[in-house]
Amino acid sequence: MPDKPHARGLEGVIAGETAICSVEQGALIYRGYEIHDLAEHATFEGVAHLLLHGEKPSDAQLKTFRERVAAERPVPAPVIDYLRASKGPLAEGSAVPMDVLRTCVSILANLDAESQSIDHDANLRKAERLLAKIPTIIGHMQRIIDGKDLVEPERGGDPALSHAANLMYLMTGEKPSPEAEKVMDVSLILYAEHDYNASTFASRVIAGTLSDMHGAVTGAIAALKGPLHGGANEAAMEMLKEIREHLDKGGTVRDFMDNAFATKRKLMGFGHRVYKNGDHRAPILHKLGRKMAEAKGADAVKWFEIGEEVQQIMLKDKQIHPNVDFPCGLTYYTMGIPVPQYTPIFVASRITGWAAHIIEQHDNNRLIRPIAQYTGPGPRQWNG
Amino acid sequence: MPDKPHARGLEGVIAGETAICSVEQGALIYRGYEIHDLAEHATFEGVAHLLLHGEKPSDAQLKTFRERVAAERPVPAPVIDYLRASKGPLAEGSAVPMDVLRTCVSILANLDAESQSIDHDANLRKAERLLAKIPTIIGHMQRIIDGKDLVEPERGGDPALSHAANLMYLMTGEKPSPEAEKVMDVSLILYAEHDYNASTFASRVIAGTLSDMHGAVTGAIAALKGPLHGGANEAAMEMLKEIREHLDKGGTVRDFMDNAFATKRKLMGFGHRVYKNGDHRAPILHKLGRKMAEAKGADAVKWFEIGEEVQQIMLKDKQIHPNVDFPCGLTYYTMGIPVPQYTPIFVASRITGWAAHIIEQHDNNRLIRPIAQYTGPGPRQWNG
Repeated sequence: MPDKPHARGLEGVIAGETAICSVEQGALIYRGYEIHDLAEHATFEGVAHLLLHGEKPSDAQLKTFRERVAAERPVPAPVIDYLRASKGPLAEGSAVPMDVLRTCVSILANLDAESQSIDHDANLRKAERLLAKIPTIIGHMQRIIDGKDLVEPERGGDPALSHAANLMYLMTGEKPSPEAEKVMDVSLILYAEHDYNASTFASRVIAGTLSDMHGAVTGAIAALKGPLHGGANEAAMEMLKEIREHLDKGGTVRDFMDNAFATKRKLMGFGHRVYKNGDHRAPILHKLGRKMAEAKGADAVKWFEIGEEVQQIMLKDKQIHPNVDFPCGLTYYTMGIPVPQYTPIFVASRITGWAAHIIEQHDNNRLIRPIAQYTGPGPRQWNG
Repeated sequence: MPDKPHARGLEGVIAGETAICSVEQGALIYRGYEIHDLAEHATFEGVAHLLLHGEKPSDAQLKTFRERVAAERPVPAPVIDYLRASKGPLAEGSAVPMDVLRTCVSILANLDAESQSIDHDANLRKAERLLAKIPTIIGHMQRIIDGKDLVEPERGGDPALSHAANLMYLMTGEKPSPEAEKVMDVSLILYAEHDYNASTFASRVIAGTLSDMHGAVTGAIAALKGPLHGGANEAAMEMLKEIREHLDKGGTVRDFMDNAFATKRKLMGFGHRVYKNGDHRAPILHKLGRKMAEAKGADAVKWFEIGEEVQQIMLKDKQIHPNVDFPCGLTYYTMGIPVPQYTPIFVASRITGWAAHIIEQHDNNRLIRPIAQYTGPGPRQWNG
């Protein structure tokens, strides 16, 4: 029964070491490379190789990595059966795409001959398989929701396409423009890794019992779903849609925000546990997304203008900066992606960071088991 | 990039408060009641009510609680379909019962009309539904593994039976003796709750993003599976079986243990992150399990004798006490329960503690997001 002051939510507490990522006030580093450098010069596949294998790939390594992952894209029939059932007998409840994706990853453990191993090389192979299959699951899920045929299920899309382009192809049946592919690719780079964020930390707590990768990723998906974490990109866009409706009825962004402040509404996509002076990733994505919106026309630009006004008010009145989820919502909306798939797409990227952390945890393990301060009733007797 | 000493695995670090449980060197307290008192005087259902609803139930409350939970025991057809598929098209990989149970709980979110709510009362209802359905999943899974008919799937067993007795009935098709029911019931009381253990902590990290209960429980199951956590009861029994084979070949417990020490083999079911002078739960279960073994005959007692010799050697040579998973393995083995179901049975109990913690987290939430110490490469350029 310890009775000491402690940091709520482990704020500022060092929970362990990592060689994968450093989240700093002035920079976000993936294994030594800064995020602006990566967003400008790398591809998502290069970053995925960096995170999983520890180094930037040579051209030859990148080629074989891409081929290896592309070959693993098809998902087994039982997963497709479950996806179809989620629109049929399994649609009785209220599951959302993040729940369905969580179940699919859990089912994949049934079909993976190495699912029980926590050996370093087996973990890497499983990581590549999950990286390959998650976009296929998302794409097939969306096609089933839309009542359309799956896109090349026997190949899991087109092996010649990049991770970003194939994800979009699987969802829509159309290969994206080079501009749209680039924006998606950059968003995946920005989302790939963020040290001990809640979902990654959950995956390390799970892996720290020497449980396996599929289980740790399943738990990470569950954590990412929350609106205080990855779910913020969906929540931010839902709020922007509310604001636009409010404008259509003659209101202003200012009075919407004043009302939100007065009712102490939690505004998603703003603030960050670690970044106190803004999230470096947000302006990178905002700029790219806005450029794409400008090419699309006035209606698309209007969303960014509303978003910019919201940001200005948040900064002026509350001194709170947007995080990357705010421009992500706007950007994916401009690209025509259904809102409930924003956080699953985040998974299609963050699987690289999670897997790297699970491998790091397994390779130098120590059970993660803190203690609690007891605040409950004093001693009593059952038959007292 | 903080550079300070930190506790590996958050050992001894207070990660938050709880009114549910206090794990102390001299006692284990569930909401004010000590574990010896509960094991002797309470039933598992009474403890489940205490953990979920905060208070020991009156006789009338206990009756309605039991009826409410018993009514929720049947599991939906799609879950049974998945269980059957796990022996068919889904048996290609290497999933174990804990993986299958994890997937079943994840699927239940599809079928729960309240799956997205984190409201206190909705959470309690979902907790009772999960408490009810998990033994049914375990029982049906075992019947399918054994190639036998499901036991009363339309009712999820016999509504007149206790949680402990019904779990055994669902697995075997036979109603247990009062003695066996009592031992199972006590094991479930002992397993119900343990403050910020790794699986509960994982569930709180997930819930702390404001993600939902099914997701948080899915992650907790993944964590409990690990041999450094709940999986220890299976691992301990597998080791005892190895020792008995060694004895059958003319070896001794002493030379098996000496060899284990020499090869730095990790012995599961011994030691505990928090308890330094032994786990109070272990002797309670050992005594009950041994009594049952004595009623069964010499072969059953032999397992306990081997276990006792292992314990003596561990204490004398390494000063390490057994934890509750060690006598649990022996006890469940004596009861004829298949080893891969030991940790799923742990889930059938710990679901109460997990759910109580998830509700506590949601009711007074703060995102759980620690920081990491970066140990990776220094600054470098992608096109350097």
